Amino acid sequence: MFARSLNDAAGQIGICLQQLMAPLGDLPVVQAMRYATSGGKRLRGFLVLETARLHGVDAARALYPAAAVEMLHAYSLVHDDLPCMDDDDLRRGQPTVHVKWDQATAVLAGDALQTLAFETLTRTEVSGDPLVRLELVATLARASGAQGMVLGQALDIAAETAPHPLTLPEITHLQDGKTGALIRWSAEAGAMMAGADVKPMRDYATALGLAFQIADDILDVEGDAAKAGKRLGKDAEAGKATFVSLLGLDGAKARAAELVDQAQAALAPFGAKADTLRQAARFVIARDK
Amino acid sequence: MFARSLNDAAGQIGICLQQLMAPLGDLPVVQAMRYATSGGKRLRGFLVLETARLHGVDAARALYPAAAVEMLHAYSLVHDDLPCMDDDDLRRGQPTVHVKWDQATAVLAGDALQTLAFETLTRTEVSGDPLVRLELVATLARASGAQGMVLGQALDIAAETAPHPLTLPEITHLQDGKTGALIRWSAEAGAMMAGADVKPMRDYATALGLAFQIADDILDVEGDAAKAGKRLGKDAEAGKATFVSLLGLDGAKARAAELVDQAQAALAPFGAKADTLRQAARFVIARDK
Repeated sequence: MFARSLNDAAGQIGICLQQLMAPLGDLPVVQAMRYATSGGKRLRGFLVLETARLHGVDAARALYPAAAVEMLHAYSLVHDDLPCMDDDDLRRGQPTVHVKWDQATAVLAGDALQTLAFETLTRTEVSGDPLVRLELVATLARASGAQGMVLGQALDIAAETAPHPLTLPEITHLQDGKTGALIRWSAEAGAMMAGADVKPMRDYATALGLAFQIADDILDVEGDAAKAGKRLGKDAEAGKATFVSLLGLDGAKARAAELVDQAQAALAPFGAKADTLRQAARFVIARDK
Repeated sequence: MFARSLNDAAGQIGICLQQLMAPLGDLPVVQAMRYATSGGKRLRGFLVLETARLHGVDAARALYPAAAVEMLHAYSLVHDDLPCMDDDDLRRGQPTVHVKWDQATAVLAGDALQTLAFETLTRTEVSGDPLVRLELVATLARASGAQGMVLGQALDIAAETAPHPLTLPEITHLQDGKTGALIRWSAEAGAMMAGADVKPMRDYATALGLAFQIADDILDVEGDAAKAGKRLGKDAEAGKATFVSLLGLDGAKARAAELVDQAQAALAPFGAKADTLRQAARFVIARDK
């Protein structure tokens, strides 16, 4: 049931991504942009569509911010997979961009995906109110820049050469930037488009984002690489602190379940209309990829 | 006289850049962002300030788009200097970012500079009219993305493995993206902020941008690496087609001078108020760095 909602959203976002990239021609860098945004769960885009629906925003409008956040996320993965960063050769069961093309194309494709994400949010289709479009641009920039996602990635790099493994508060801060900020933006986008209070969505997504990351750490230990479509066991191999190394496997699972309860609680004001978001919260800790 | 105008503008933009990056803390990635935006002629930022002045736009407002385009330009240089791209170890007489820090920091610093450029354009200080801010974001995205600057860079990479050297129309198209688009945006920004017709500034900057690139190719052959602050002679070494290889040294100089005349002609409607922009046009072909 939830899998179908997620799948439907992914399909619609895919069509929107195709349309947005159609005018860009067919150079390798553009092929790489299309490749990097194909596949994946599109959880962030789904959150945009679902929180927009919850706030009565037209789905046709919400598709653009959904596509934008997926492009932003894809750019971060393409750059993160580079040899000088995480050096991953497999993503979503396929060769990463720098393996399929080359590093220069991966750098440029990531750069242009970031640019197109911001350009997409300026389109009049997103909202008749220019202030809404500006707010989406400014908040996505803050979520993904040197005080959001890039901060998290920079802390992650710094951790590799730190004299001691990170503590629980340090890991939590790192992950709040690295994956949390973008997930939070995705959930808040629907409320922003409606001019509504973003607080309930922020609380929901903050708990959801952390649960998502703990689940990732659990998957890294317990998961099936074939299902996950990427190399697993990397963190333990590198001796990196994770939620599992800090809390133990059972402790991490208990913490993730607690966070899912918190996420659900934040949805109380919305009643049954928020059931799909409730399912999403359960999904993030039950997924196998 | 013109050198002083350019220098004054560079100083003011430097202060604005410092203020914009002050809240970002002091991680290596943020140090690298500051480093990458320090020094340089800041010609693009100067064009924003000068075209804003020409259109009666408050200088305090124009500083933000000027800083934004310098951040965008700096991100492109940091990524372009990477070993997988142009592999340059010297820029503006200093070690490039990946040499001073490492490649991962260079990728992330470039990424975050792009993000901050767009965020900066959304600030209310830029304009009281949200549509002006949105137009600046959308046009900078188009100028720098896969149909602008990144397109030019991608064509440049493709040229390296092309079966024959590029022709004059191909080089002109490549450079129009790689350096022309951002220079054009810089000159148009002042007109956009005033809600004025951008056509004269577009004509001025299109000629100026091409003259700038031809001058770069001439510098690559005739220049002094110590003054230029970067390695020269690379294009000839790599057997790449340039304006000099296609037109000859004298032909390239004649073409650049012709373009400067064209740029000047586009300024005719503005009379003596545009004298600094006229000087800028002469400067781009007379510079030694």
